[in-house]
Amino acid sequence: MLPLVVLSLLLAVTPSIAVWPVPRQYSTGTTPLRLSSSFSIKFSGIEHAPRDLVDAVARTTSYLRTDKLQALVPDRGASSARAIRAAKSLSSLTLSLSTKGKVRSISEEAVVDVESRIEGYTLTVPANGSGASLKANSTLGLFRGLTTFGQLWYDWEGTTYTLQAPFDINDSPVYPYRGFMLDTARNYFPVSDIKRTLDAMSWVKINTLHWHVVDSQSFPLVVPGFTELSAKGAYSAGQVYTPSDVKEIVQYAAARGIDVLAEIDTPGHTSIIAKSHPEHIACFEAAPWTQFANEPPAGQLRLASSATTNFTASLLKSAASLFLSKFFSTGGDEINSNCYAKDAATQADLAAQGKTLEQALDTFTQVTHRALKDAGKRAVVWEEMVLDHPVTLANDTVVMVWISSANVAAVAQKGYKLVHAASDYFYLDCGGGGWVGENINGNSWCDPFKTWQKSYSFNPTANLTAEQSKLVLGGQQLLWTEQSGPSNLDPIAWPRAASSAELFWSGPGGDVSKALPRLHDVAFRFVQRGVNAIPLQPLWCALRPGACDLDA
Amino acid sequence: MLPLVVLSLLLAVTPSIAVWPVPRQYSTGTTPLRLSSSFSIKFSGIEHAPRDLVDAVARTTSYLRTDKLQALVPDRGASSARAIRAAKSLSSLTLSLSTKGKVRSISEEAVVDVESRIEGYTLTVPANGSGASLKANSTLGLFRGLTTFGQLWYDWEGTTYTLQAPFDINDSPVYPYRGFMLDTARNYFPVSDIKRTLDAMSWVKINTLHWHVVDSQSFPLVVPGFTELSAKGAYSAGQVYTPSDVKEIVQYAAARGIDVLAEIDTPGHTSIIAKSHPEHIACFEAAPWTQFANEPPAGQLRLASSATTNFTASLLKSAASLFLSKFFSTGGDEINSNCYAKDAATQADLAAQGKTLEQALDTFTQVTHRALKDAGKRAVVWEEMVLDHPVTLANDTVVMVWISSANVAAVAQKGYKLVHAASDYFYLDCGGGGWVGENINGNSWCDPFKTWQKSYSFNPTANLTAEQSKLVLGGQQLLWTEQSGPSNLDPIAWPRAASSAELFWSGPGGDVSKALPRLHDVAFRFVQRGVNAIPLQPLWCALRPGACDLDA
Repeated sequence: MLPLVVLSLLLAVTPSIAVWPVPRQYSTGTTPLRLSSSFSIKFSGIEHAPRDLVDAVARTTSYLRTDKLQALVPDRGASSARAIRAAKSLSSLTLSLSTKGKVRSISEEAVVDVESRIEGYTLTVPANGSGASLKANSTLGLFRGLTTFGQLWYDWEGTTYTLQAPFDINDSPVYPYRGFMLDTARNYFPVSDIKRTLDAMSWVKINTLHWHVVDSQSFPLVVPGFTELSAKGAYSAGQVYTPSDVKEIVQYAAARGIDVLAEIDTPGHTSIIAKSHPEHIACFEAAPWTQFANEPPAGQLRLASSATTNFTASLLKSAASLFLSKFFSTGGDEINSNCYAKDAATQADLAAQGKTLEQALDTFTQVTHRALKDAGKRAVVWEEMVLDHPVTLANDTVVMVWISSANVAAVAQKGYKLVHAASDYFYLDCGGGGWVGENINGNSWCDPFKTWQKSYSFNPTANLTAEQSKLVLGGQQLLWTEQSGPSNLDPIAWPRAASSAELFWSGPGGDVSKALPRLHDVAFRFVQRGVNAIPLQPLWCALRPGACDLDA
Repeated sequence: MLPLVVLSLLLAVTPSIAVWPVPRQYSTGTTPLRLSSSFSIKFSGIEHAPRDLVDAVARTTSYLRTDKLQALVPDRGASSARAIRAAKSLSSLTLSLSTKGKVRSISEEAVVDVESRIEGYTLTVPANGSGASLKANSTLGLFRGLTTFGQLWYDWEGTTYTLQAPFDINDSPVYPYRGFMLDTARNYFPVSDIKRTLDAMSWVKINTLHWHVVDSQSFPLVVPGFTELSAKGAYSAGQVYTPSDVKEIVQYAAARGIDVLAEIDTPGHTSIIAKSHPEHIACFEAAPWTQFANEPPAGQLRLASSATTNFTASLLKSAASLFLSKFFSTGGDEINSNCYAKDAATQADLAAQGKTLEQALDTFTQVTHRALKDAGKRAVVWEEMVLDHPVTLANDTVVMVWISSANVAAVAQKGYKLVHAASDYFYLDCGGGGWVGENINGNSWCDPFKTWQKSYSFNPTANLTAEQSKLVLGGQQLLWTEQSGPSNLDPIAWPRAASSAELFWSGPGGDVSKALPRLHDVAFRFVQRGVNAIPLQPLWCALRPGACDLDA
């Protein structure tokens, strides 16, 4: 009988599984298995498989052929060549739903309220070559399982193989919200960039694109009834998202299990609206901008004006109707009070109504949120709307914490559902230097760079009571694009943004040293699939797990 | 008569020129001028134009058609449309050499000793549509002038135009060495990436690729007579630079006015040599690596062994013969003395010879540098070789300062020619977070990120006497690739690496606020030409010079 110390050592070296995010429960073996050249994915008991599920199967089959990802070992698999050749081959994976009745599409299941999404699955890959099996309670779950199946394999000279059969996986996410935020206002991204990003997100089971679509610098969203906003406020006639672009993005996302949570930030971050509606904007391009806004150009919606309030409510309602999501964000961050103090129109409105600025903000928020609610949307706001302003919010409002993770507990104390998006862990733009023109020694305000290890180490329930912990919906990494565009979208985001994907799917407490080899797999697989993920280390380190740890 | 204060104000608003690096002397006008659809570049008095000059003319002509770079103004040129349509058109640019006799090719002139390169030119573009003229004393100078000519123009709806004719430019570099360093050992870059980088370098008149080709992690260089080094030490059989690859790179570079200064770092940074020659390497992959090397894996050449010394000398000589450059770097940074203290073979060699480690290093250096000198090369070393080790070096040795700009004066005091490459100004990898596997709060050792403004603000002769200042050959930005590969080469390097290109061509003291609009032009032009330069600011700022300065 093995003494206990040796047993725990054996447990410690149980091989990992090259799946990201790591499944909640899994076991692997040590038997080589290869994919048959006639390998196929079938349905069992699903008579009319939804089109998006059929497409997902086709993509999975294609990736299995084209990934050609070599194992991250020094000889890349050469020493396993004989075992691979001699291995039994797997000829099929069979998908089945454990529920009866009408089969909903992945797209339908992806856009239900995030708290109701069903993403779990079980996946069994026997070692003897008999058929593999994937079961779920939803097509969305089947899609997650397909994604996992696609990550079990390496390539050696054209053979797709694993050395770890059999697999037994029983998986589901710890947190329902796992997002990625993209800002398309500071710099514009073509639809193709967004679609490629959605693919990448789906590969690590991220289920929400938080789309910060417009801001003070540009208004690329073509909103029905408000087309003057993009006509005058987009960077150019071509740098817009038309309703058909939005539809394409929303459908592309949904088919990949991703909900698109759009944001039109109000009342701040709206300067560009003045290009078509100067009557609605206070302190438009006021100088020095440092006194009127956190970044240029200055300009905020005249929240005390009923005309502006109604305009905003109608705009939000029309914009929200472009999206399938149950959520819509009205932002609410970085409201600059000096902007309103110096705006004669706002001061006149406040005086006429006998209101303080905060009372006006409360009215503005109630009216605009009511419009969203009428459109069937739950409101999402940034943390200032509950921490800094005494505004009335619906109980089901979702709050995003961005300034600091230290503010999470205060938001939870207010009783709102919350999403982790704190700059000290999750901002992808930090550490890239300051972008203000003439500031020679300027650095990014949220220095230093947030490494994948940093975001991976985050504890979603730190300083929360058990009850408050239930308010945590999940979290996301965020890309503000003052210094990003199509040229660096992939490398600034990937594979880093996968770290929160695992944190919020598999749960916290993961060991970075054990996670790193799998994250290397993510990065290299992304590159094989056309997403320019960066190498996290010299390849020498990637091929030798642990060898580039500090204590190695 | 204008009062003096108004006059100086007028001078201050003299329009800039969208050329990077900014010419030493230039004047511009305010007359619109467009390129004729039949525009052509001709030679005058150059009967047998070298092939590389003919090719450079063809590339310039092609860029003039394909750049399609819109002016960085809010309307992108729309309000100038009428003036552009009504403008006179320029039908030709004529190139001539002011010297007589045999015409040398750009390639020949690019690889002479850096202190003898002739890069000046004069360029005249009249406003009246009569032919433009480019004159130089060398084909290399003509190439620099062609590069400038290609940057004078914007596009509006298919018309290539300027609003600033006439141009009178008299240009030459302040410093002879303007480099870019690429590390191809931590991660490998295909030849196509290096060629694209050479193109980008040439567009901003960088004249030296400092190619840190091998290191401890991999040995991708196929060296005649030493092919076992890459056979065993490259990341894979495909991730190598064969002699024919090197020839292709060297010729491609030279045709673009770029010398390739190769480096085989010795005696440190050589661990991978042990894969084929374990007898030559001390402390091979010794653990913990932190005690034996600055990064994993540990391993250094046994500098006290005469066999190893001769091996190294022969290797350097063979490697150097692959390159046309008059220079070759033997590195010499980060020699770890503990590695040798713990190496029995080295200790035995030292004891047998009755030498200290430093005496052995001196012998090693003299023998290896003698081999390079016999091969016609000037040696280049990192700063430690003159500041930390009492080794004998030839007077014409070039020293690169990398640890800190604070060490420049000490190197100058030793009387060596020097190249600025200090981490506190010029390292492109700083600020990207730590890459050691399990270090959650680790950041790059040279934090923070070095912005373009930071490198641009460098003073090459700070703390140097007038006499010492003559030792400064120039400088470069450097990309160490622990966290870089093909996926982020362009965005991490460009447009930032253009900042030192202007600093060392046009001289120090440039105003970052005035430089920024031109650097935006560089970035956008690079993107048009297929190099993924990043946006330095939101496009809103790029279209409004100064509006995103701190005091705007």
